[in-house]
Amino acid sequence: MTSRLAPAWRTTAWLNTPEPLTLERLRGKVILLHAFQMLCPGCVARGIPQAQRVAELFAGAPLAVVGLHTVFEHHEAMKLESLRAFLHEYRVKFPVGVDEPGEGGDPIPRTMSAYAMRGTPTTVLIDAQGRLRRQLFGVHDDLLLGAELQTLLLEAQAGPVSGVHQPAPQVLPAAACDDSGCAAPSR
Amino acid sequence: MTSRLAPAWRTTAWLNTPEPLTLERLRGKVILLHAFQMLCPGCVARGIPQAQRVAELFAGAPLAVVGLHTVFEHHEAMKLESLRAFLHEYRVKFPVGVDEPGEGGDPIPRTMSAYAMRGTPTTVLIDAQGRLRRQLFGVHDDLLLGAELQTLLLEAQAGPVSGVHQPAPQVLPAAACDDSGCAAPSR
Amino acid sequence: MTSRLAPAWRTTAWLNTPEPLTLERLRGKVILLHAFQMLCPGCVARGIPQAQRVAELFAGAPLAVVGLHTVFEHHEAMKLESLRAFLHEYRVKFPVGVDEPGEGGDPIPRTMSAYAMRGTPTTVLIDAQGRLRRQLFGVHDDLLLGAELQTLLLEAQAGPVSGVHQPAPQVLPAAACDDSGCAAPSR
Amino acid sequence: MTSRLAPAWRTTAWLNTPEPLTLERLRGKVILLHAFQMLCPGCVARGIPQAQRVAELFAGAPLAVVGLHTVFEHHEAMKLESLRAFLHEYRVKFPVGVDEPGEGGDPIPRTMSAYAMRGTPTTVLIDAQGRLRRQLFGVHDDLLLGAELQTLLLEAQAGPVSGVHQPAPQVLPAAACDDSGCAAPSR
Repeated sequence: MTSRLAPAWRTTAWLNTPEPLTLERLRGKVILLHAFQMLCPGCVARGIPQAQRVAELFAGAPLAVVGLHTVFEHHEAMKLESLRAFLHEYRVKFPVGVDEPGEGGDPIPRTMSAYAMRGTPTTVLIDAQGRLRRQLFGVHDDLLLGAELQTLLLEAQAGPVSGVHQPAPQVLPAAACDDSGCAAPSR
Repeated sequence: MTSRLAPAWRTTAWLNTPEPLTLERLRGKVILLHAFQMLCPGCVARGIPQAQRVAELFAGAPLAVVGLHTVFEHHEAMKLESLRAFLHEYRVKFPVGVDEPGEGGDPIPRTMSAYAMRGTPTTVLIDAQGRLRRQLFGVHDDLLLGAELQTLLLEAQAGPVSGVHQPAPQVLPAAACDDSGCAAPSR
Repeated sequence: MTSRLAPAWRTTAWLNTPEPLTLERLRGKVILLHAFQMLCPGCVARGIPQAQRVAELFAGAPLAVVGLHTVFEHHEAMKLESLRAFLHEYRVKFPVGVDEPGEGGDPIPRTMSAYAMRGTPTTVLIDAQGRLRRQLFGVHDDLLLGAELQTLLLEAQAGPVSGVHQPAPQVLPAAACDDSGCAAPSR
Repeated sequence: MTSRLAPAWRTTAWLNTPEPLTLERLRGKVILLHAFQMLCPGCVARGIPQAQRVAELFAGAPLAVVGLHTVFEHHEAMKLESLRAFLHEYRVKFPVGVDEPGEGGDPIPRTMSAYAMRGTPTTVLIDAQGRLRRQLFGVHDDLLLGAELQTLLLEAQAGPVSGVHQPAPQVLPAAACDDSGCAAPSR
């Protein structure tokens, strides 16, 4: 278990939030930080949708899903105006910070450097006390991500997610099958 | 939270296991019971693959994935010989019990009745003390299923899954994107 | 181009059709013969759905989609009663013949042998004159299958498919994007 | 059948080609014109991948796949530099022209207007004589698109695609099943 505090975020702008987010302001919540680039195919196809599903499915839990636009290539192609349009078209609702450019011509932006991220997408889990607990480059399996989030939520004494987020069971027609399943005849 | 003990399983045969499984023999382990029919399209396309991924991803945890063949229609079409071939062709590795036929012409088999399952697939979570904690008809979201399993595993004092099941991070070529993500240039 | 006549079908039963189908009775139509086994995962996940989409999308063309159950393993598990339930549950609507068992203990059924099929799924295209024009083991790409079917349909003087099977264009909300596309603002 | 000539393309830049493409220069070839916006989710997820597969699968046929960047919203977000990076990251290899901005503040670019396209993605098929034969808003079914392309290719006397583009059949291990299919035992 990593116990160091997560490095502070250094950003130049925020979208989808009235004011900038900081680790301090989110203390007490579990944080899923999703670092991405808007022109990274794996982020668009899989990483961002996963982050959005987490935000939706755990909406009732003390969890903050935060995006971080960590541009390390094609900087001219992914400026703020393009990111804003991207978030609009892809219906990304969670807050997204823009990582501060590296200094002295470093292509790697500063928060990305501070976390020693290897590329995008990178998923970072930060516990309610602000400690960096998990960092993964590439797309994580939903089953494991759900398990890891729950560990941090339970530590934060949020109670089990299963108790508060049970989706309504699917009602299927009696004695028939569709793509979801087969309903038993009623008795 | 449901606290009643999970009903005993009533079965006529078992596959993929040298001897029949019972709740008593699995006490101390969290159980994911996956009730399916081999000719249920939603089970084949989504439910069984999910159960298999749980078995693989949580292989190091005190968790038992158990299948239950709960045939409630087309009984002649899904006999033991067909089930055996199905498990072979679909490479299902976890143990599967065959639910005992209902009595007096009841099309619903006995374990399915005892659990009041509404159809297939149905996913049942049983905690390490044998209590029925969750039952869901239809296919569950991986994120939520992972969270619910983790709750039961942590209760069983198994320690966090995230500590023992970290898949090796994906190694991507430097400074290039593929379907999984974009790697940062090395420095 | 193969120009030999397609071998006759030798079958023991037919489902989804009031009477047995033969090549002679279908003369004048292009035939897509889909050979499968109900417990073949690739057939279930991809081959049969492809054959069904062909049947639906080319419904107005002189084309017959015909299934052939070519069981060459697990014979006891895939008898007529199981096949019947399978077709019902998977909503397969096209006619399906049951290939006649091989003689002298040969596990390969007779039509499968006559066509020298290498396994399942196998897709066979037969032209309107009864000639075997294409045979492919594994799942074919939709774009190429569409092209090949069209070649045979045009030869049969059916006229271009594009003229008769244009699906209604998708109507999207003005000036908004969804998963299908982005609609331009109306003027 | 539409018989009018396809409107000329009005573009301000081209990528992935040493020199601008025009309908005249492509005369004699069938053209698949794919109109898209780089921030259109349906284009990214489905339309562009389909156009790329056409380019690959029909590589030997007299067919040109041409992209057209028809930006009608978020103009500032999808400038040439962003498009160039997008094509690089998504590995789009076919030539792409940039549609000329509309005049007098019209958000719809000129080629898009001339074709009366309703949004993105739009797929346009132009025959070897330069006539506009098909225009579809939204994502087309692969089977039908393959059939329509083949009609135009056969008209252009290219001969059947099936004769020249047969992918190597998949070789599966003897007497075993995988996700693609089941191989028969060798005899």
